[in-house]
Amino acid sequence: MTREFCFTLKARDGKARQGEITMPRGVVRTPAFMPVGTAATVKAMLPETVEAAGADIILANTYHLMLRPGAERIARLGGLHDFMHWDGPILTDSGGFQVMSLAKLRRIEEQGVTFQSHLDGATHLLTPERAIEVQCLLGADIQMVLDECTPFPASREQAASSMELSLRWAERSKRAFQSLAAPGQALFGIVQGSVYPDLRERSAAALVRQGFDGYAVGGLAVGEGQDTMLDMVAVATALLPEDRPRYLMGVGTPDDMLAAIARGIDMFDCVMPTRSGRHCQAFTWDGRLNLRNARYADDPSPLDAASSCPAAAYSRAYLHHLVRSGEILGAMLLSWANVHFYQDLTAKAREAIQTEAFAAFAEDVKRRYAASGDPDDAVEI
Amino acid sequence: MTREFCFTLKARDGKARQGEITMPRGVVRTPAFMPVGTAATVKAMLPETVEAAGADIILANTYHLMLRPGAERIARLGGLHDFMHWDGPILTDSGGFQVMSLAKLRRIEEQGVTFQSHLDGATHLLTPERAIEVQCLLGADIQMVLDECTPFPASREQAASSMELSLRWAERSKRAFQSLAAPGQALFGIVQGSVYPDLRERSAAALVRQGFDGYAVGGLAVGEGQDTMLDMVAVATALLPEDRPRYLMGVGTPDDMLAAIARGIDMFDCVMPTRSGRHCQAFTWDGRLNLRNARYADDPSPLDAASSCPAAAYSRAYLHHLVRSGEILGAMLLSWANVHFYQDLTAKAREAIQTEAFAAFAEDVKRRYAASGDPDDAVEI
Repeated sequence: MTREFCFTLKARDGKARQGEITMPRGVVRTPAFMPVGTAATVKAMLPETVEAAGADIILANTYHLMLRPGAERIARLGGLHDFMHWDGPILTDSGGFQVMSLAKLRRIEEQGVTFQSHLDGATHLLTPERAIEVQCLLGADIQMVLDECTPFPASREQAASSMELSLRWAERSKRAFQSLAAPGQALFGIVQGSVYPDLRERSAAALVRQGFDGYAVGGLAVGEGQDTMLDMVAVATALLPEDRPRYLMGVGTPDDMLAAIARGIDMFDCVMPTRSGRHCQAFTWDGRLNLRNARYADDPSPLDAASSCPAAAYSRAYLHHLVRSGEILGAMLLSWANVHFYQDLTAKAREAIQTEAFAAFAEDVKRRYAASGDPDDAVEI
Repeated sequence: MTREFCFTLKARDGKARQGEITMPRGVVRTPAFMPVGTAATVKAMLPETVEAAGADIILANTYHLMLRPGAERIARLGGLHDFMHWDGPILTDSGGFQVMSLAKLRRIEEQGVTFQSHLDGATHLLTPERAIEVQCLLGADIQMVLDECTPFPASREQAASSMELSLRWAERSKRAFQSLAAPGQALFGIVQGSVYPDLRERSAAALVRQGFDGYAVGGLAVGEGQDTMLDMVAVATALLPEDRPRYLMGVGTPDDMLAAIARGIDMFDCVMPTRSGRHCQAFTWDGRLNLRNARYADDPSPLDAASSCPAAAYSRAYLHHLVRSGEILGAMLLSWANVHFYQDLTAKAREAIQTEAFAAFAEDVKRRYAASGDPDDAVEI
């Protein structure tokens, strides 16, 4: 077993890349989708099912885990992998994004961010050093620098000041990582700069000078629209080194992902497949379906005839019945089928890049999803 | 594949029996525990997991399924087995018990019971003939006669009158079954009579004269206490034919089941393992545990070291974290471990009967469960 973290490019098709990240805990085939295991569980799925669906790596949230059950507790219990029965690689975020979106009474200073837990109101200080310490306690294979996720919209001045703070925090994160991390663990920098191309360029160039094992593009998919998001992705990837993986954080729809792959992105995470699965929605090769819709009550066809996922073999009528009845099995099957779809999507993207057929593949998926339109409003079960 | 329903006694230990029910869809090893799949799903479990846990047969509820998604709809979709992906035998109740416990504005007459759906208030009439028709539409392998589940407490006069009505309904159920059922399907009668031994005797004897493929003991575990319940079981089994399976409906705790097996019962169903699993409670060979309890927060030991269930290998600390966090995986793992425990309990009971060690086995389980005491109050997740 290797003790190194390394990224190997295997194929290209335009700017789209197919590669492999090799880590002590396993190989991640890119483009890769990382199911989100917020609180040490990919919601409503067994870890072996996540793996069988094709996931090489999952994401877990530092913010949630440091608050409950606590990073020191997980370390005492043997680390996050043992705790949640996931043997493969785990990427953890730094906690910064959730501090901004979930916690209360945040105060951002040079030192770090002081916030109150959304669970019990207790006050915490998250510094770049503490974010790395927590990720090391969890035993994360890929760790992220603490950044300030710039609010959207932000003025140019706000965005610049926030991005510069994130660069200083990145430097401190890197120093902490160098003293705390185990061999084979990796640290990614995060490009910020809101919707301002020159700030994105400044951020990317500075991070590359600092030097990281991989680079994320952060602060996007927050309301700026797909065109702007993709422009910012292209600005960043143009400056990022070819021999390091690139990760677009928190994205997205199938179309978002394929468009970002076309601009040189290798990794994604998003709650969409699991959250949608708990909201009666399915991602299929026929587009997106809302299983609450009465049109499925008598539909004997399988959820997705084009899928090899066992969950997709259940009839739409049965899934409709389960979600209408508020049955947990509905959330289980739809989460499973959705994660499987996302894994199939990236597997087919990898294949398409290898055969230089990526553009046609992305166009086909876009067409399937455009035809399905917006799903009906759905109720969480 | 046999087209017959038959019961074979394999071993005895005192009044405890070990046997096999052979049906077109499979063999049920008795004593058997049937997980409850109320609305065409054993809650929070995949059907393949229920099977792998050791279940030979599951129960589904006629009342729930006739209201939603509807028996005719399930028949159009190919029957309940295809609908829910369960290939093995299914026993359905007649709907009578849920009409009494869930529906509103019930009116019981000779013809049947008129009630309002708890879902939408629509008025329905359930007659013995309709109860059988619904069960045949579902394709149930073992069907139950419509009975009136006598309220508890009931005066002797109420209990006698209710029991006599159930006997007349049993006769009508049998006639309907004879004209509607498919080869190999079976119909069970249900002994009623509340807590009055002579009424129980009258009910059992009359049902045996009518003649059924098996006999259930109903109207118990409704507040009469374990001693009275077991007395009523013993009165009934003394009169029931040796060559037919006997089913104690809606029971129960591990101790209840073993005590009833000692009195000649072969089959059980109960929501306890799955409902407890959604309420943070686990049945283990160490007794009953409430995983919400803070004492498990740092407990690295597996849920149940004596179990071969994959769900029982997760640490108590992890399960505590999941249930505290309201994660669906907590309900999934605890439901799985509990159903597995119930299947192991009946498997070990079968083995103990074969080796004439049943009394010692039952005593050991009783001791383990007495020591664990009542679980703490728990909150549904």
